[in-house]
Amino acid sequence: MNQDELVTLLLDMKQDKISVEEAILQIKKEPFQDLGFAKIDNHRGIRQGMAEVIYGASKTPEQIYKITKSMMEAGQKTILITRMKEEAYEYMKDKVEFTYDSLSKVAIVGKIPEPNGEGSVVVCTGGTSDMPVAEEAALTLEAFGNQVVRLYDVGVAGLHRTLAHLDEIMSANVIVAIAGMEGALASVIGGLADCPVIAVPTSVGYGASFHGVSALLSMLNSCASGVSVVNIDNGFGAAYQASMINHMGRK
Amino acid sequence: MNQDELVTLLLDMKQDKISVEEAILQIKKEPFQDLGFAKIDNHRGIRQGMAEVIYGASKTPEQIYKITKSMMEAGQKTILITRMKEEAYEYMKDKVEFTYDSLSKVAIVGKIPEPNGEGSVVVCTGGTSDMPVAEEAALTLEAFGNQVVRLYDVGVAGLHRTLAHLDEIMSANVIVAIAGMEGALASVIGGLADCPVIAVPTSVGYGASFHGVSALLSMLNSCASGVSVVNIDNGFGAAYQASMINHMGRK
Amino acid sequence: MNQDELVTLLLDMKQDKISVEEAILQIKKEPFQDLGFAKIDNHRGIRQGMAEVIYGASKTPEQIYKITKSMMEAGQKTILITRMKEEAYEYMKDKVEFTYDSLSKVAIVGKIPEPNGEGSVVVCTGGTSDMPVAEEAALTLEAFGNQVVRLYDVGVAGLHRTLAHLDEIMSANVIVAIAGMEGALASVIGGLADCPVIAVPTSVGYGASFHGVSALLSMLNSCASGVSVVNIDNGFGAAYQASMINHMGRK
Amino acid sequence: MNQDELVTLLLDMKQDKISVEEAILQIKKEPFQDLGFAKIDNHRGIRQGMAEVIYGASKTPEQIYKITKSMMEAGQKTILITRMKEEAYEYMKDKVEFTYDSLSKVAIVGKIPEPNGEGSVVVCTGGTSDMPVAEEAALTLEAFGNQVVRLYDVGVAGLHRTLAHLDEIMSANVIVAIAGMEGALASVIGGLADCPVIAVPTSVGYGASFHGVSALLSMLNSCASGVSVVNIDNGFGAAYQASMINHMGRK
Amino acid sequence: MNQDELVTLLLDMKQDKISVEEAILQIKKEPFQDLGFAKIDNHRGIRQGMAEVIYGASKTPEQIYKITKSMMEAGQKTILITRMKEEAYEYMKDKVEFTYDSLSKVAIVGKIPEPNGEGSVVVCTGGTSDMPVAEEAALTLEAFGNQVVRLYDVGVAGLHRTLAHLDEIMSANVIVAIAGMEGALASVIGGLADCPVIAVPTSVGYGASFHGVSALLSMLNSCASGVSVVNIDNGFGAAYQASMINHMGRK
Amino acid sequence: MNQDELVTLLLDMKQDKISVEEAILQIKKEPFQDLGFAKIDNHRGIRQGMAEVIYGASKTPEQIYKITKSMMEAGQKTILITRMKEEAYEYMKDKVEFTYDSLSKVAIVGKIPEPNGEGSVVVCTGGTSDMPVAEEAALTLEAFGNQVVRLYDVGVAGLHRTLAHLDEIMSANVIVAIAGMEGALASVIGGLADCPVIAVPTSVGYGASFHGVSALLSMLNSCASGVSVVNIDNGFGAAYQASMINHMGRK
Amino acid sequence: MNQDELVTLLLDMKQDKISVEEAILQIKKEPFQDLGFAKIDNHRGIRQGMAEVIYGASKTPEQIYKITKSMMEAGQKTILITRMKEEAYEYMKDKVEFTYDSLSKVAIVGKIPEPNGEGSVVVCTGGTSDMPVAEEAALTLEAFGNQVVRLYDVGVAGLHRTLAHLDEIMSANVIVAIAGMEGALASVIGGLADCPVIAVPTSVGYGASFHGVSALLSMLNSCASGVSVVNIDNGFGAAYQASMINHMGRK
Amino acid sequence: MNQDELVTLLLDMKQDKISVEEAILQIKKEPFQDLGFAKIDNHRGIRQGMAEVIYGASKTPEQIYKITKSMMEAGQKTILITRMKEEAYEYMKDKVEFTYDSLSKVAIVGKIPEPNGEGSVVVCTGGTSDMPVAEEAALTLEAFGNQVVRLYDVGVAGLHRTLAHLDEIMSANVIVAIAGMEGALASVIGGLADCPVIAVPTSVGYGASFHGVSALLSMLNSCASGVSVVNIDNGFGAAYQASMINHMGRK
Repeated sequence: MNQDELVTLLLDMKQDKISVEEAILQIKKEPFQDLGFAKIDNHRGIRQGMAEVIYGASKTPEQIYKITKSMMEAGQKTILITRMKEEAYEYMKDKVEFTYDSLSKVAIVGKIPEPNGEGSVVVCTGGTSDMPVAEEAALTLEAFGNQVVRLYDVGVAGLHRTLAHLDEIMSANVIVAIAGMEGALASVIGGLADCPVIAVPTSVGYGASFHGVSALLSMLNSCASGVSVVNIDNGFGAAYQASMINHMGRK
Repeated sequence: MNQDELVTLLLDMKQDKISVEEAILQIKKEPFQDLGFAKIDNHRGIRQGMAEVIYGASKTPEQIYKITKSMMEAGQKTILITRMKEEAYEYMKDKVEFTYDSLSKVAIVGKIPEPNGEGSVVVCTGGTSDMPVAEEAALTLEAFGNQVVRLYDVGVAGLHRTLAHLDEIMSANVIVAIAGMEGALASVIGGLADCPVIAVPTSVGYGASFHGVSALLSMLNSCASGVSVVNIDNGFGAAYQASMINHMGRK
Repeated sequence: MNQDELVTLLLDMKQDKISVEEAILQIKKEPFQDLGFAKIDNHRGIRQGMAEVIYGASKTPEQIYKITKSMMEAGQKTILITRMKEEAYEYMKDKVEFTYDSLSKVAIVGKIPEPNGEGSVVVCTGGTSDMPVAEEAALTLEAFGNQVVRLYDVGVAGLHRTLAHLDEIMSANVIVAIAGMEGALASVIGGLADCPVIAVPTSVGYGASFHGVSALLSMLNSCASGVSVVNIDNGFGAAYQASMINHMGRK
Repeated sequence: MNQDELVTLLLDMKQDKISVEEAILQIKKEPFQDLGFAKIDNHRGIRQGMAEVIYGASKTPEQIYKITKSMMEAGQKTILITRMKEEAYEYMKDKVEFTYDSLSKVAIVGKIPEPNGEGSVVVCTGGTSDMPVAEEAALTLEAFGNQVVRLYDVGVAGLHRTLAHLDEIMSANVIVAIAGMEGALASVIGGLADCPVIAVPTSVGYGASFHGVSALLSMLNSCASGVSVVNIDNGFGAAYQASMINHMGRK
Repeated sequence: MNQDELVTLLLDMKQDKISVEEAILQIKKEPFQDLGFAKIDNHRGIRQGMAEVIYGASKTPEQIYKITKSMMEAGQKTILITRMKEEAYEYMKDKVEFTYDSLSKVAIVGKIPEPNGEGSVVVCTGGTSDMPVAEEAALTLEAFGNQVVRLYDVGVAGLHRTLAHLDEIMSANVIVAIAGMEGALASVIGGLADCPVIAVPTSVGYGASFHGVSALLSMLNSCASGVSVVNIDNGFGAAYQASMINHMGRK
Repeated sequence: MNQDELVTLLLDMKQDKISVEEAILQIKKEPFQDLGFAKIDNHRGIRQGMAEVIYGASKTPEQIYKITKSMMEAGQKTILITRMKEEAYEYMKDKVEFTYDSLSKVAIVGKIPEPNGEGSVVVCTGGTSDMPVAEEAALTLEAFGNQVVRLYDVGVAGLHRTLAHLDEIMSANVIVAIAGMEGALASVIGGLADCPVIAVPTSVGYGASFHGVSALLSMLNSCASGVSVVNIDNGFGAAYQASMINHMGRK
Repeated sequence: MNQDELVTLLLDMKQDKISVEEAILQIKKEPFQDLGFAKIDNHRGIRQGMAEVIYGASKTPEQIYKITKSMMEAGQKTILITRMKEEAYEYMKDKVEFTYDSLSKVAIVGKIPEPNGEGSVVVCTGGTSDMPVAEEAALTLEAFGNQVVRLYDVGVAGLHRTLAHLDEIMSANVIVAIAGMEGALASVIGGLADCPVIAVPTSVGYGASFHGVSALLSMLNSCASGVSVVNIDNGFGAAYQASMINHMGRK
Repeated sequence: MNQDELVTLLLDMKQDKISVEEAILQIKKEPFQDLGFAKIDNHRGIRQGMAEVIYGASKTPEQIYKITKSMMEAGQKTILITRMKEEAYEYMKDKVEFTYDSLSKVAIVGKIPEPNGEGSVVVCTGGTSDMPVAEEAALTLEAFGNQVVRLYDVGVAGLHRTLAHLDEIMSANVIVAIAGMEGALASVIGGLADCPVIAVPTSVGYGASFHGVSALLSMLNSCASGVSVVNIDNGFGAAYQASMINHMGRK
């Protein structure tokens, strides 16, 4: 209930269109949501026309299908499903129209909105093995209305590969830097770029990479300013914040 | 060397104003800096009028003084010195005019610029013990031209304290959420706010807080979208990125 | 052997009803059990009428069946089997009458007793993925004679969901707060509630959740007073202590 | 604002005693506090006559003194100050009347209330080195109106010492079990007692005790049911929850 | 080459029976083995009549069979094979006569020697889940000529179970104490017994047991004197040392 | 009360030398110690004539002095005080006659008993920095009646130094192997020796030695059979068990 | 573009063979690669005739085949494929001629070059279980033109086995020392050898070996000088650097 | 005793210049050192004219002085003392002539030898705070006869600083790359250089740098080939191996 609706409600009551009891019921019913949390709902589906998100990891194919169905019926134009397993894809593919990227396990139901962010978001990775996480980020960004520039396999051990993309790096509005192993990409990109860098450590590596801990620590300790970090393999989380930043001026 | 200068150089050589050897020397001399790295320098002092930064932690009072002096002579209007120990303050206080916050160990030389960001940046903390880190963030933000709203001691164990500031939280452009111990503040703020949240774990706590590790892990695992994390006690780093985000539309 | 029996024994010996040797044997035979350990057996089946427990995790279907059988023959009215694998269920389902919850792997043989605790015990979770642990707790509580209020998926990232249940939280006698990832639920609930909160970290999450370590540390460092913690995924343990607390006045 | 007040407000508005705008303002103003948070304040000072608590660890002597003063002026009868350093004691000793235990760094201002809990709370420790934590727990319990039985140095390596106190252990209403090093005390006590046991790992030990981590893990993994755990060295936290439990029937 | 042989060699050379070059070659050839390493071989098969050991974990069925065969042909009377997988058992069962314990994965080829140690070795466990490790220890001890007393499931959470075996514990010559979870057994046994206790942490448990780390730390920090520790699940290693100790007087 | 004393007591009662009440009092008074725990007391001071031990780490000089005094008055011939700080030495040096080793912080009051173990105990270290721990072990061994062979600085990086002492290593009855850094000494000694080896990791080292964790892990994973491990820097614990082993045949 | 080419370019422009615009384009086009990064390409295939490397771990059989094919067509004489799974072998075995070592998962396409290093490289292991890593190293070394001496199963628990190869160890030019469990081999070899030792911890072991962490720490803390370490199980990395060192004089 | 001396000895005996007994005594006296370990001694002082090393960390000023004195008297021309505390410098400065670098705590007695390695060794650091470790490495290298190129503060966050030294990096014979915090320098340098890179993590940093662990993991996981790692802050160890490599061709 927004302020206009509250005014209407109170006037209705005053004019005896509804009883005092009914007004009280309305006011008490969902006090948290109604009296200030309206913004929270906006929060979830950031802005009008943006994607609704389903986190598929711990849901059964049936559950995912049901939630998707009910969102579609509620008029949702774009639905992003992350970490959706192959079997859920198999279950749903004849029931709903959607695209599915088997590498990143991301499904998108409905149409991808036109990019309406401030600028482009660069998604770069240290190696090709980081691509599942990178595509989760890139597809999330696209579903949220961002123009994405993919720079994959630009790891710092072959610095010329990184530097060959200096233009894209320097003209980005936000950068999502994704790397496993030693995670040095975040520091090098953070030193080159003039925009916020959101670093995503990946679980790529072996031995003392400790399933992404090495890259995580590396990124947290980045000597470059302007770098922040999300959880290991959390491409979605980085993309979500990157999209927020890329839409700052549009608020 | 930008493109115009390169054209001039080549034409000069063509017209025998300079020899081929000299041209080659010019071209080879600083290829990295000249052919694209100019932006890097902009990076350091983000935008005209912004603060230059000195990281005081591992520098002697003499070193800090010398660097400050030379920056001032170079015309720098605002200089931010972080992690400056008491003895450096004592050493410098009669030589240069500056403010010093003994809690956060932040010094600011010159005048603090007028806020020129998009909106306000909220700096909130879980407890009063997090204030040294919070003030490092807040003063950095101010030195970089941001309007700062301080919400200290709004930890989630007393949720009414957090919720009492719902307005500031919901109208912020960026939020820096600072907490030690269990670091739950980041998740609660991240769930309430509709803007990027940069979380700073602090080393406040004892026992199984492991000098900030508990809060760090908590923040990395935040179930709220739109939260990214910087190193333990890194108030400056969070503020730096928050300032970048808050100036997105002004680029 | 209580004091009366000891007196009798000594008098018997004095009056030559039994020999000195026999008296010595009696005294030495089971000193630990006789002089106070009887109470220990009460401990296991807390109070008359309560459930007996079988920890199924490392037992074969045959072993579980045999123990159940012998308990039933001994007149046990309610038997709780935790962490009972599907195959044990398959093995036993035609041999004994019982209910089996495949989500939490909890089986209950016999009838669930009428709630006879002081008040209600709230079992709340941060997300739906925590439900297997939550149901282990909830079914254990019910088998031990407690009225259970289930509040699932009330995680703090959507604070309005948590607050929508303020009444249940505030009128609970004991709360079992279950969450994975960043485990912030324990602190928020601990701050809202006026009763003991037993926190259960779960292994739900990925990356830096480290299979529940992040939630565990978070809960141990809770800034809310009145919160204690059990092992990761230990729904049974939390329920056991919660039941003890909820029956305090009935002792 | 409770329901009666809401009815009054709406009727007032209906009868033009207040304007619609005023009614809206009232309703929106402090929804969280008004609609249920009153209880939260009760939470802090659990019940009438109970101690108010100051966490002294990160406060200056002046700050502690000021807070104490204002609490006293507000009519608080008992004030508990934990982790109060010697210098704060020195600063305050001539200004306010209070007792100070230099071992546990606990100060109590005002009179200790008569025990009004259900039964006794046993505070036991593995060794004499655990006494600072134990006294923090014991004094907290006393300040909160509990009868305390101290059983110090009853560690399991000398099991006869533990068993010599079987009576106290078995007749306790709640037990706070405090141990460093291998923390086995919690399991043994948990196995013997028929009441909730709150275990406190301490940082006592060296080498692989890792400042309490060994004891913490040991206690979390206790094979005895009915044991929950608080943070390393958190005597206050254990006592707080123990007091809650010991007052269950008095609510 | 012992001293006599060296004298002979030099005299031979002096008397021109062998050339100087040959003498030098002899002296340089195998200095390490000849001058004292013979004893090392004794080390492997501790004493005449003892078992030879094959560590089966990383060997193929064929490799195990071949080594066994060649040992048998070399006249070895008892061969102990640890961590031998089912498939190796299947492969060998028709080729060689041996016993195989599928719980502990221990095979014994040949006859188990008569106990010839000083006294009995107690192998005790905290729970029934520790039995695979316990049987590895017990069978190793028997294969090495020790009388073994098995005390399984005597964990400290049910102290009366532990104490019911006080006689065996107190009359043991060496004790191997095996436990997972919180590993408290080692401390309690170490406090009761008057002989060396070798503690074996097991990977039994879940959550914060961290695959045996909790028990390991607990045992290393045991407050009982006379306790030493081996690697997690290393029943063989504990038995090997226990057998050495139990044969001390027979050397 | 041993069996003889119990018989006497009962007969005395039977013959009316003492009343039934007195007999009951005697029997109940210290049931645990009297009815079976007698051995426990033997345990502490292993055998007649052995040293009593005071762990000085957490005791004040006054406490140490008092305990020492009362032990002396009770007729104790040898008292071993470990981890006794300089100030305790200063406090006690004019009050009691004793030797004090400032390197290992070990004091011995009374005379060191004649060695009465089976053979010699070798105490060897990887480097000279391990000597404080080594002397704690060596002096403990001597106070418990063992002949000690000190082999210091025989680390494996200079293998000839290790091998130069092959004779002592091979003829030892028990070996205490002490090393920090990478702790390889335990494996090499364990491979060379034909007797139990008790390994003591030390906190000597820097960086990735993690205050002894590297050496601890190394020793736990020793590929040599017959090696067990005690806590980091626990020279006393290793010596205690080594002495037990070295006195096996004398039991 | 090397210096000669730059001179030519500028002269061409001066003589109007190419336009100024074309010259600018050439200069700007690939500044990083052209003006100094040529060496980088040499880096990959260290020296003429050396192997090109494909890291097979995260590549599909099809991808590996395609890269191999294109390298062969580019005239590459030797191609080393590491961590190539069985299925890739199956896929490729009829399409390309190559050898495949199923133990180490290393494939070599083309002919192995003649050894052209300075001396021999010793690859030694602590046990036979380390052989997969050792063969990855040995085959890599051979593919890079080194003479390899394999010393497997020379672990320090049987020191005579180590010392039996003193000659090879002492005459090596570089040594790759590979061991799991406690990793003591590196220290012993490092102490014996007079050449650089590159240590490779392996994930061989169980319990407290923590998948190679114990060996890794052990090697990093080696008390022997001249030892450096690579990642757990990184046989290739050690071999790569060893080959570099063994070809130092040939640069 | 080298081979020539052994021949002489045997011939002397043959010609009755010495008795058989004397020959035996000579041969047996120091068998390990004499009959094969001669190389080991060479190892310590790598080659004629090289520095002898004293590790000063755990030695008293007196001990350092005595060892130095005896080395000088034995004719040692250059003595390197690492980790020598200020007080040792004060103690020795008037007794011996030497240089002392108070930053790295390295002292050099005698003259620094002329560089006689194959090429130059680059010592580079990420920041100025890494200089103490870097100077330990650089001075060690100089004392061992290497030409050192110092490139300090060339961290990757300001990539132009790194690249400005491309020439030195690419023409180095060996590189010692030293960095704290995220340790990315090793990967970038490893990718640029065509020679062995020995990486040294430093304890520089705060929070999640965990005293060098972050940099250590980063370096172990370097995606650049040809990088190996030594212990945290171990500048000496890296220099020692770098010197070995730089003298390969001179062996």
